[in-house]
Order: sequence, then C-alpha cells, then structure tokens
Amino acid sequence: MNEFIAPVELEKSYRLLNHGPTVLVSGSHGGVDNVMTAAWSCALDFTPSKVMVVLDKITKTRELIEKSGTFVLQVPTVAQLQLTYDLGRSSLFTEPEKLAKTGVQLFSIEGHDGPFVEGCSAWLSCRLINEPHNQQAHDMFIGEVIGAWADTRVFKNGHWAFESSDPDFRSLHYIAGGNFYAIGESLQVERE
Amino acid sequence: MNEFIAPVELEKSYRLLNHGPTVLVSGSHGGVDNVMTAAWSCALDFTPSKVMVVLDKITKTRELIEKSGTFVLQVPTVAQLQLTYDLGRSSLFTEPEKLAKTGVQLFSIEGHDGPFVEGCSAWLSCRLINEPHNQQAHDMFIGEVIGAWADTRVFKNGHWAFESSDPDFRSLHYIAGGNFYAIGESLQVERE
Repeated sequence: MNEFIAPVELEKSYRLLNHGPTVLVSGSHGGVDNVMTAAWSCALDFTPSKVMVVLDKITKTRELIEKSGTFVLQVPTVAQLQLTYDLGRSSLFTEPEKLAKTGVQLFSIEGHDGPFVEGCSAWLSCRLINEPHNQQAHDMFIGEVIGAWADTRVFKNGHWAFESSDPDFRSLHYIAGGNFYAIGESLQVERE
Repeated sequence: MNEFIAPVELEKSYRLLNHGPTVLVSGSHGGVDNVMTAAWSCALDFTPSKVMVVLDKITKTRELIEKSGTFVLQVPTVAQLQLTYDLGRSSLFTEPEKLAKTGVQLFSIEGHDGPFVEGCSAWLSCRLINEPHNQQAHDMFIGEVIGAWADTRVFKNGHWAFESSDPDFRSLHYIAGGNFYAIGESLQVERE
C-alpha cells in the first residue's frame, strides 16, 4: 500500500461509486486470485454502506467470491484503460495466464481478503451478503463495505477532485465495443 | 414526442445506462405524476432488458410506482443540471407544487404509462418486476425495459456520440453536496 492511499469513512464510501464508474471486481479463494471488469455496479445504502455488482455465471471471479464470501470493488483510471478492457475480455476459466498476460499488479491490505489492484483510484473491501435469489435470478451480488480507501491525489476531503488532478486519474465509463468515456467537467448547482 | 426522439432496440438499451449516469425516475398513478432524481441505478440484464434503481421509502415516486407497476428511467443532460438537482431535493409529499416549481415539462408516449421528461437524452419505459424482499430490504426496484428511446442528436447508430454533439447533451454524474460531473472524453481501446 503506497503513501498516497488513505482510508475513506465508510459512510462516505458511496461517493467512490456515485458517479457510475466502470469497476474492477477482485476475489480470492484457495490461493487463486482473479480480477474482472464490471459496468453494472452501484451503491445500495449509506449506513451500513452497501454496494451491488452484477457477475455473470460464466466468470471465475464469481466462483471465487461465492466460496470466499468477500470481494473488492475498485475504480480504475484512464491510465488503466487497456488493462480495464483486457480484464473484462478474457476469463480465467479459459485463460489460466489471464492475470500475467494483462500485467495487472495486486497488493494486499492487512485484515482484508483482497486482492487489491495497484494503480486504481479507490478500493472498497466488501463482505458478501448472501442472497441466493438475487445471485441466481439476477447475477446480482450485494456486499457490505467493511473497508474503503482512495488515492489522496484524486480523492480529497471526502470528494473527488478530478478537475484539479492528473487527467490520468479520471474514472472510466464503459459503453460497448471497446468504447469508454472518461469522467469530464465539474459542475456545481446553485443551492438555496 | 419531438422529431429527434427515435426508438432504441431493447437489447441495446443497456447502453443508455452503461456509463453510469444519474437518472430521473418518473411514475404516475391515479392522476398524480412525479419525477425524482436517482444516482443509484444500473442495467441488470440484456435479454430481456432489465434495470434496477434504488428508491427511498420517503419518496412519493416510489409510492406511485408500487401502485402502478410501471416507471420510466431517463437520462438528464448538462442543460438540465439545476432541474436534476432540484428534482432530487424536494418531495411531492411535503411540496405539492414540486413539479411546477422545478419547471419540469412532461410528455407522453402512446402505449406507455409515463410520464416522460422533456429535454432528456434517453428514456427507458419499464414494467416493475415485483420483488418484495428487494423493495423492502434494499429499496431496490427492478424493471423490465418494455420501450426505449433516445435523442438522435446524441445517440446515433446504437452508440452515444457525446464527443461530436452539443456539450449541453452530456450526461450528469452526481457525487454529493450539489457536485456533479459531466461525461467527458471518448477513449477507444486497442482490440485484437
């Protein structure tokens, strides 16, 4: 864990996902790590902080999470554009060297299962709330956030600072066919 | 419905939400219309196309949707920044003139309950899939998309064209405290 990674209060951790970024989902079980990309994920509650993510039945990451009962959501950056695409394109089921081939670098945080992906802007360590109906019918996995961290170069005082940070830290928002958008201009409304 | 609004194939309608925009949720029952803002929403399936949105128990829109069994998700634009904030700030329960005060303009589409919000970039008409556990425990409402439309000035040939359209059409991505981001730069990965 590098010097720029700092904890985020759990009740503010929803802000890490509130703008709808594409995320990397990681899981680990029995000595096997995996990471996949997911566009269908969002916050679900403030206190306790909860999140949801859709994980297709064909993914190895889903199997690891079902077995371990924990997962990590992390917010990849523009600097990780190709990595984010590649982690969503191949499966550990059919490509045993998936992680090595994508070049993804993992790290650990004491007290949490991980694995955590290096170079992201934010990380949410989650305990799976087991809901068989949602998992089977909707491929939906719900987790309670038990730890949250962000890179202080882009998330400051409880708020994203994309507009004043290195553009490489911008979040990614996937559409389809290899087309992403980066997050853009900051806009502030008039408040009464 | 103006000349720029065109249907989107249901199996591609997930693309309207895939980049994680803040949405406007509308519902109607017994002659009462309402619209609220929601940041916690995402696609859930391709075929049939499904979506989810989190609706707090304190919202009037939730009550209308529970009674009617239908709702609309729509994607507001930068031109609707203040409107999007205002629709999320006041409740029809405590402010009977909410819609008039925000200035929101509604329209209808034949064969769908609506109401639909004028000036958005995309609309998804949804039939509620009633799931009492998700609605009670997670405030989560799941819908099957039964109609989808987009403004052809910003969604063309099944893809968003934010980069080549009027910047006022960009989607909004809410964080907290009146802070939004607009969607930004288009990025394309290398595909093998």
